Amino acid sequence: MKRVYMDHAAATRLLPEVREAMLPYLADVFGNPSSLHDWGDPAREAVENAREQVARLIGVEEPEEIIFTASGSESNNLAIKGLAQAQQNKGKHIVISAIEHFSVLYSARAMEKAGFEISLVPVDKYGMVNPEDVRKAIRKDTVLISVMHANGEVGTIQPIKEISEIAKENRIVFHTDAVATCGNFPVNVKELGVDALSLAGNQFYGPKGSGALWVRRGVRLIPLIDGGIQEGGRRAGTEDVPAIVGLGKAAEIALKDLNSRMQKLIPLRDKLLKELPEKVGHVVVTGHPQKRLPGHASFCVEFIEGESMLMLLNSQGVGVSSGSSCTSRALKASHVLLAMGLSHEVAQGSILFTLGVGNQTEDIDYILEIMPPIVKRLREMSPLYAKYVKAGKGE
Amino acid sequence: MKRVYMDHAAATRLLPEVREAMLPYLADVFGNPSSLHDWGDPAREAVENAREQVARLIGVEEPEEIIFTASGSESNNLAIKGLAQAQQNKGKHIVISAIEHFSVLYSARAMEKAGFEISLVPVDKYGMVNPEDVRKAIRKDTVLISVMHANGEVGTIQPIKEISEIAKENRIVFHTDAVATCGNFPVNVKELGVDALSLAGNQFYGPKGSGALWVRRGVRLIPLIDGGIQEGGRRAGTEDVPAIVGLGKAAEIALKDLNSRMQKLIPLRDKLLKELPEKVGHVVVTGHPQKRLPGHASFCVEFIEGESMLMLLNSQGVGVSSGSSCTSRALKASHVLLAMGLSHEVAQGSILFTLGVGNQTEDIDYILEIMPPIVKRLREMSPLYAKYVKAGKGE
Repeated sequence: MKRVYMDHAAATRLLPEVREAMLPYLADVFGNPSSLHDWGDPAREAVENAREQVARLIGVEEPEEIIFTASGSESNNLAIKGLAQAQQNKGKHIVISAIEHFSVLYSARAMEKAGFEISLVPVDKYGMVNPEDVRKAIRKDTVLISVMHANGEVGTIQPIKEISEIAKENRIVFHTDAVATCGNFPVNVKELGVDALSLAGNQFYGPKGSGALWVRRGVRLIPLIDGGIQEGGRRAGTEDVPAIVGLGKAAEIALKDLNSRMQKLIPLRDKLLKELPEKVGHVVVTGHPQKRLPGHASFCVEFIEGESMLMLLNSQGVGVSSGSSCTSRALKASHVLLAMGLSHEVAQGSILFTLGVGNQTEDIDYILEIMPPIVKRLREMSPLYAKYVKAGKGE
Repeated sequence: MKRVYMDHAAATRLLPEVREAMLPYLADVFGNPSSLHDWGDPAREAVENAREQVARLIGVEEPEEIIFTASGSESNNLAIKGLAQAQQNKGKHIVISAIEHFSVLYSARAMEKAGFEISLVPVDKYGMVNPEDVRKAIRKDTVLISVMHANGEVGTIQPIKEISEIAKENRIVFHTDAVATCGNFPVNVKELGVDALSLAGNQFYGPKGSGALWVRRGVRLIPLIDGGIQEGGRRAGTEDVPAIVGLGKAAEIALKDLNSRMQKLIPLRDKLLKELPEKVGHVVVTGHPQKRLPGHASFCVEFIEGESMLMLLNSQGVGVSSGSSCTSRALKASHVLLAMGLSHEVAQGSILFTLGVGNQTEDIDYILEIMPPIVKRLREMSPLYAKYVKAGKGE
């Protein structure tokens, strides 16, 4: 059976060069970077080299502004809680978009217990934030704005530069969750104009357990993990040297290959975005038609459930998702799709193809071949579809 | 040149079996454990298998009570902040020992900002907590006690069972930081009688970036990292499958090899503890003479500084530490040694040999051979020693 993996938003396979770079740190170079001897030195140098590689990927000039973490979720928690807490004497209001990742949304909710108030900025039907809505949400006591660079469920790229200008005018710290974009789409902190940015290695062929938060020098941050002096006192715990080295290598390769990756993925993505709705019928493309992640094709297939499609696709060798893997076992309608104005019914039919560098045109052809009969079969069992046909609107 | 690594408290080398167990998860088995397809399934099974392995190591019957983290420091932060926050309506007082790891101490300090009060229980000259002092520190509003199982700087094993009985009598949640003991010394949560326990893989030949917190069912915990549904909603972020698998394998091997490891290390440790003071002179053994970690030999060498010894030992191929690697670059006298009643002057001469399964008798012999001339050389340059000699007390 053909096997097609199109769930790169959930996990990417390590590039062979990334794996090779990591292996010595799982063997001979095992020292603690904080150790003041010959076993510690190469580990420390490897960590600092990786810090430079990550800094270069996102256009940061001072690598020491990069804080290594163990995941994008940790980076987002550190950003939201740490930046809010550091400024709580100035004010206790946070502005985020309605479609943030749960690690941002629930971090903000956690701050409510410490007396903060949260304003959620809406999105349009494409999942796009209007910068003017951010402006409207700002209050005198707003100390933090967080809007993601791109949403991992619908792929929409947000107008971060425009929002950062509004944040600057109002002297409010602006964080962006760039977990979905870093390594897959151009990310430059200067061009974006942000003060803090989260990323994760497992989103661009780097290791699980690797992440980073960049915070501009001079912006105060309260640590999430207190203790040792690692990461400039901003994140305690023995450095995960292999993961950090892998993240650095993945960043180096992403910087070099970004354009060729995008040029390869965009036509595949566009073919799927165009042809799947034609072949299947009653399919809504979710997210923005153009301003979206290069490898990201997402849909709602009407009258059926995403999980059922996912299972049948899996039985034919295709791995996809019906939403964020942080919620995939919760089986609830996505807060992102609901915020975009889709009904619960339509949102249930969410299906998400996230392409990676290993995918080929044949993979798209295979999906376009097997999807129509899968959908047909599921609709035949669907009470919603039966109702629709009965009303005289069916095929 | 002979090379002797005796800094296993800072970092251990992965066992070959652990490395082998991890490698598939850095290659073909790259899926996200939360994914509902054939790429996710083996990753999820691997994580759950590791959870069982870790549960068995510490005598936990329900593996789902284990929460995977990325370090011992994260486990301790999650424990102290999470257990305190969950009970803040009951009371806002925390009791910890004066020699806790900074990840416990500074987590408790962070809770002070949320209105908590902290009581530090003293230790005796061996670094031992007297359980009666814990009893005395308890107040009506005490909601959490945390005393480490063993201290990584001086090796002293604490009377956890006795303290847990006092905690139980007073119905107070009791956490122990077992990062130094797990995998190196018997740890059984039932025998210890604790409610929560931290551990870290890099302390027992498992991977960096791996840790766990066990929390007894029914004990409430507020997450440190909010977001996804991973780890039963108690720790968001994509699971670091290779690190978790490595932790599980290291736990499995530790359970099997614990006795033979201890039988090997204890005589080596005892040789060093006995002979180094004899050969060098003016050396204080720190920590308890018997109740100490099997591979842990720690000293204060009078009139000189630990870092200088460390550098000269390194130049002769020996890797050791002068304290916790979480503070090794801070170059301050250890809060642990000061709490034990040592003077700042003596505490400056701290040096720490932590043995591991790779060490041999010849390694001890080598250290006993090179230490006297190193100390002699440093004392010749020491103003403190000159003063002492001038007072007519020198050799």
